[in-house]
Formats: sequence, C-alpha cells, structure tokens
Amino acid sequence: MALIVHKYGGTSMGSTERIRNVAKRVAKWARAGHQMVVVPSAMSGETNRLLGLAKELSPEIASDGVLRELDMIASTGEQVSVGLLSIALQAEGLQAVSYAGWQVPIATDSSYTKARIQSIDDKRVRADLAAGKVVVITGFQGVDDKGNITTLGRGGSDTSAVAVAAAMKADECLIYTDVDGVYTTDPRIVPEARRLHTVSFEEMLEMASLGSKVLQIRSVEFAGKYRVPTRVLSSFTPWDIDLAEEAKSGTLITFEEDEKMEQAVVAGIAFNRDEAKITVAGVPDKPGIAFQILGPVAEANIDVDVIIQNVSHDGKTDFSFTVHRNDYARTVDLLKNKVLQQMGAKEVTGDNKICKVSIVGIGMRSHVGVAAKMFRCLSEEGINIQMITTSEIKTSVVIDEKYMELAVRALHKAFDLEQQPA
Amino acid sequence: MALIVHKYGGTSMGSTERIRNVAKRVAKWARAGHQMVVVPSAMSGETNRLLGLAKELSPEIASDGVLRELDMIASTGEQVSVGLLSIALQAEGLQAVSYAGWQVPIATDSSYTKARIQSIDDKRVRADLAAGKVVVITGFQGVDDKGNITTLGRGGSDTSAVAVAAAMKADECLIYTDVDGVYTTDPRIVPEARRLHTVSFEEMLEMASLGSKVLQIRSVEFAGKYRVPTRVLSSFTPWDIDLAEEAKSGTLITFEEDEKMEQAVVAGIAFNRDEAKITVAGVPDKPGIAFQILGPVAEANIDVDVIIQNVSHDGKTDFSFTVHRNDYARTVDLLKNKVLQQMGAKEVTGDNKICKVSIVGIGMRSHVGVAAKMFRCLSEEGINIQMITTSEIKTSVVIDEKYMELAVRALHKAFDLEQQPA
Repeated sequence: MALIVHKYGGTSMGSTERIRNVAKRVAKWARAGHQMVVVPSAMSGETNRLLGLAKELSPEIASDGVLRELDMIASTGEQVSVGLLSIALQAEGLQAVSYAGWQVPIATDSSYTKARIQSIDDKRVRADLAAGKVVVITGFQGVDDKGNITTLGRGGSDTSAVAVAAAMKADECLIYTDVDGVYTTDPRIVPEARRLHTVSFEEMLEMASLGSKVLQIRSVEFAGKYRVPTRVLSSFTPWDIDLAEEAKSGTLITFEEDEKMEQAVVAGIAFNRDEAKITVAGVPDKPGIAFQILGPVAEANIDVDVIIQNVSHDGKTDFSFTVHRNDYARTVDLLKNKVLQQMGAKEVTGDNKICKVSIVGIGMRSHVGVAAKMFRCLSEEGINIQMITTSEIKTSVVIDEKYMELAVRALHKAFDLEQQPA
Repeated sequence: MALIVHKYGGTSMGSTERIRNVAKRVAKWARAGHQMVVVPSAMSGETNRLLGLAKELSPEIASDGVLRELDMIASTGEQVSVGLLSIALQAEGLQAVSYAGWQVPIATDSSYTKARIQSIDDKRVRADLAAGKVVVITGFQGVDDKGNITTLGRGGSDTSAVAVAAAMKADECLIYTDVDGVYTTDPRIVPEARRLHTVSFEEMLEMASLGSKVLQIRSVEFAGKYRVPTRVLSSFTPWDIDLAEEAKSGTLITFEEDEKMEQAVVAGIAFNRDEAKITVAGVPDKPGIAFQILGPVAEANIDVDVIIQNVSHDGKTDFSFTVHRNDYARTVDLLKNKVLQQMGAKEVTGDNKICKVSIVGIGMRSHVGVAAKMFRCLSEEGINIQMITTSEIKTSVVIDEKYMELAVRALHKAFDLEQQPA
C-alpha cells in the first residue's frame, strides 16, 4: 500500500462527465489498496470567467485591497471542483471528503495572487486517510496567518499537489496533464521531438523555468527540495487502463544521479517568447548598481529572469535583464521615472520582440564544448545572438523572436535529440 | 453616525452592472457618515447552477458526506459576490474588505444545508469599521466547530444579515428585495393589497412562516429575539434617490407595542400552497402518541407545520399534521412502514392538493369574534374548511387548494384591508 497524490488540471475537470472519469480513475487506484489524496484545479475556463467579472468592475487591479479580493473570488473555482469530485467519488462508492486550502490548512505568506506555501499541517488529512477516506484538496490556494485566502498564481495547483505530497511524504505525486510527458522540445515545433522516460530534477527545473510549461516551476522546486517522486502523465488515457501500465507511463522526475537515466549530454531544448529585454545603458560602474536598478523592480513585484552585466568601458557599463512581456511597459516606465536620473545613467532601451532558447542537460556538466556547439549551430543558420547566459546545466541565448522555430529545430537536430540515447 | 447593515438579494447582484449600482448605493450611505456592513447573496442563478452540477454527479443527496460537499460547493456563490462587491466599492473610492462566513467567523451547528447560527465574533469586523472600511460579509453560510463550511438553507442570507446586525447592535438592518415592502397580502392575487408602513415583529413572523416569502422566517426570529430594527425595502429604486427618502421607504418591523402602529385588527392575509396534510387515523388515545408519530418524522429531518389532534372517540383519535409538499411521499412512506403497525393505528391518509390561508394581526389579541368572521366569510363563499389552528395573533385554515385565490380575496375584503386604517 502506497500513499499517492494525484493532480488533475482544469481540462480533466472541465465537465461533470470528465469529473466522473477522474473519480473512476482515482477509485481504481484506491481499490488497488493505495491511500489517495487528489488535488484538482478549477473547471477549465472558470478562473478566467471569475477574474473577468472582477475586471469588469475594476480595470485597475494593482492595489493590495483589490488583489486580496481577486484571491477571494478566484479561489472559489477550486473549491467547487473539490466538492464536485468528492461527490463523484462518493457516487463511486468510496468515502471522500474535500478541504479548501484554509481547512487543511496550507499556510502561505500574504502575497495575494502569487503567495508562497510556508507549511502544510497534514493531521486532518492523515486521520481521514487512516479512516479509509479519499481526501480531495483544493489546488492553487492557501491561507495567510491572518486568515485571508491567498492564491499561488497560475498553475499553482501543481505546486499544491507536490507540496502536499512532500508534507505527507507521499510515495509518488502523479500530475495528470494534457501532454503525455516531458519532451526533448515542443513537438508542435519539432515533430521529431521525443518523450523522455525520466528527466533529472535539475533539467526539469530548467525546462520548466525556460517555458516548457509542462509544470509550474515552483512545483518542480518543491519536488526537488523534498525529493518528491513526481510523474507527469497523460489525463487522456482511458480511466480503466491497466494500473501497472499507467503507473509507469509519462515522464518521471528523478533525483539520484546514479539512477539509470538517459545519458544524453543535452536532454532538451526549451524556449520562451513571453519575455522582453531591457537595457539601462551608460551606468556609472560602481558598487550597488545592480541593486539600484533591480531593487525598485522587485519592489514593484516584477519578476526578472535573465540578468547580464558585462565589463565596463570608461567607467560606464550596460546593464540588461529580461522580464515577462506583460511587465515590459511598466518596467520601462519605472526605470525612466525613478531610476535613470537618480543613478546618472544614459538611457533605458528595450525590445519585446525577442525570445529565449536554451539547451538543457545534466550531462553538460562533464562535457566541454556543448555551448560552443550551440553557438556554431545558430551561426550556421545566420541567427544573431543578443544575450547569452549559462549555468552548469543549461545555456540560454536571447534572439529575435522571428528565428525561434528555426533555432529550436536546428538545435534539436544538432544535438541528435530525435534519437533514443544508447 | 449610525451602524447600518444592508442586505442585497441575488437579483441585485445579478450582473457586474447591478453590482456596481449596489456599490454606488452603499457608497451613498457611507459618505453620509454611516458605518456600513453589507451582506450580499450569490449572483442570481449561481446557487442553482452549482447545485445542478452536483446533482449531475449524484442524484442521491441524502448522505451527510454529500450534504457536506454541497455546502462546500454552494457557499462559493456568496464568496464570489463579496469579492466582486468589495472590488466595486474600492472602484468607488471606498476602502472595503470582504469576509467569508468562516473568516468572521459566523459559528453554526453542523447541520449541512440547513445550519443554524450559534454565535458571531464581531472583533475583526469592528476593527475594520473603526478603520473606515466598508465590510462585506457572505450571506447564507458559516462554519461549524470542526472548521467545516455550512450553509443556512435557501434565503439564509436574510438571516445572516439580521444576525450580523444583532451581533453588532446595528442601528438598522435594511433588506433590499424585489418587493417594496410587506403587503396586506400578495398583490398578484389581490390587486387592492396595500403596503404596510410598519408591521409588528409577531405579525411579520406569522406572515413569513405562513408563506409570504418576503423574508426568511429565521431572519425574523433573529430580528425579534435581538430587537433588530429591520426594514424591507425595494432594491429597484435608483441608487441615487435621496437618502432620507430611501431610509423611510418600505416596511419597518417594529417591536414596541406602544409604538405608533397601524391599529387594524387584522394586518394581512397569508397563504401557502407548498404544504400537504397527513392523517394517522384510529390511533389509540394514550400518552405519547404525538411523540411516537412525530419523533421518527423529526429524526428524518422533515419539518412539520400545523399539528392537530382532536378529542377521541372510543379510545381512538385521529392525528393530523402538515409537511412541505416535497416531503409528502417520504413522510407517508415513513409512517406506513415504521409507525403504523407499531402503534396499532388504523391507517395513514393524506392530501397534497391543499393550501393554508391565514389571517394575521396583533390586534386580534384584544378583539373577539375575528376567527368567527373569517369562518363566516369562507362559508359564504362555499369553501369547506378541512383543518383549523389558531394562535393569539393568527387563525389558519387548511382548504382545498383550488379555492385559495377566492379565499384570500374574500378575506382581504371582509377585513377591509384595502383601506388605510384610521
């Protein structure tokens, strides 16, 4: 008997018919003797519908007072889902009980619409499991120390599921999604893209953060931090397929380097066209400039991705970074109005027609020349590289967005990703 | 400066446009210097939509496990409403904050789908009011001592509003509805029906319990128990009508008998065609029969309204009562299968084509012959009376439902209700 966490996305919960199928799948696992915790998302379209109503009432959603109410409203989508799924499970003859985040409780900080989980009290859930119940917990949400409802941001249900699995030391967390696993890159761009049977936690982290969008990045961080065996698998298989077959489908995120894993140097090609780059040019090169520029950006709750500062000339340097494209105009305004004069920089420029393409692979650690091979490949395709950042297991370039597909296809081929590794 | 509670029904909250109008009306009161607490219902249609989804998954909703989930689901309708209204108030330039029942908290018992309020902790709300905020609280729901969400049953938002007003010793509770006050009877049946400027708490209690449906009965009980000045008024007046005019519109429920009130003997005619009558015939007349019959009925959570037991003949008596029409078949089954043989009664009969018509008036206390006048009036119309019950301030008869309109019209005229009292 194992303790298993299932997570189902909005598409799987999209109608009562689909919810019934989720219940049948969960029932199959429960009847096989497993203790089951299920974390469903809101029914597809529901979160957008709710936030749409809010937007009609207040196009301006920046204040903390409004953000608090948005969480109050948006969190109801998952609350409806857990109630419906619990009823469907009971109709299957199981005992089931649902909990909203505040009931577990799943404690978070108070950052409305993008809260972070701080702790999960599993006493109530554990007692229910011991009593033979399936426990259904809302994804996407928690409660702060003053009893306010918070949400974790888009895709937060993945994080909820993995965090619950971590808190309960679950044997495995199964994330049912509309893809059947993690691929070497997006098959819509490279038809030869191949599903990975396993992917290391570090690779998955890079793939997710670089825009592969299979899992929310924070869920992968949780999985890594607490070593939660997490599997991404398809929600489109029939609910009654053989359990043993289902249990080994999809892609398993692994943590042990000595585990038998595919030993390709590069595991996959990630890309992201949701970013924009911003450069503060002619910055006096003295201590503290990074903080002077990014401090106000962080205060405005704008997430920064790539950051580059190169060597200076004549005591001046250029400082570049990327933000989400939605934050582009706001960030440029902020820098022009608040930062530019104060630090005596020359100008703020930017471009929101860029994309980021990355090669990711734990094997890069021990293989020299991988980045060089990437640059040569792009050069052969005539693609100009605007920015470069590297880490131990990935190399990212920022290029003009119009070259994105070309770059991804060329790199996928250059690193032989369509071939199953030996 | 007064502390005022406003309650808005589902129709008033039916669209973002209407929610904006509610916000403007509340803002008008707040700007006049009042401390404002607002209790909105779910957007019209939302509760039915949610329960409809649940029903698709489980036509059988009797178990406690399912009822708990229904409350989990249904309570989200009001949670969305408070969030949206709070955002609309902020868009009007006010500070506003919303709370779900569990956040206040509004403590209830654990009777899912028909919970009763036990206590309301107003500390958090009071602190917000002192800080100049409008507080928006979900109607219809609370939380039990184990942290489970409960709902108060249909119309429960009225009760929530009055209970909050009672707990906070509000100066007045204004219930905005789709009628502009309490009438001598339903104007759809008697066009001459007249709006009452005031109605005594006891009369209102009888009017509501007898099916006038303006307010949920429990809200009137609360209003009476805690002497909450409660006003029923129209939500269809423009939001910007003069506040002084709005404040004295509708019908005020009064508690002091020496208050200047309309001194008609009969205040109004109530009626109800949602009931069915059941008779257990040939019951051995010995102590405990009422409990033997109604004990199992109460255990099955079936509400009983009128109860009649007349004198016995030959040691046998007939015991009659009425239940909601929806509970009719279930009650008859219960009595036939569990009660009949056990107590040696002859048979169980019933009729669900009945209605109840009542005259209600605090003036009846000191006026003899009021009931006699009612019976004469019905007799002149050729209407046979099946059951009679009386209290100090009302007399009810059960008659064939086909005579309902005729009876109501005849009684309205017989008691001169179309005339403004002197």
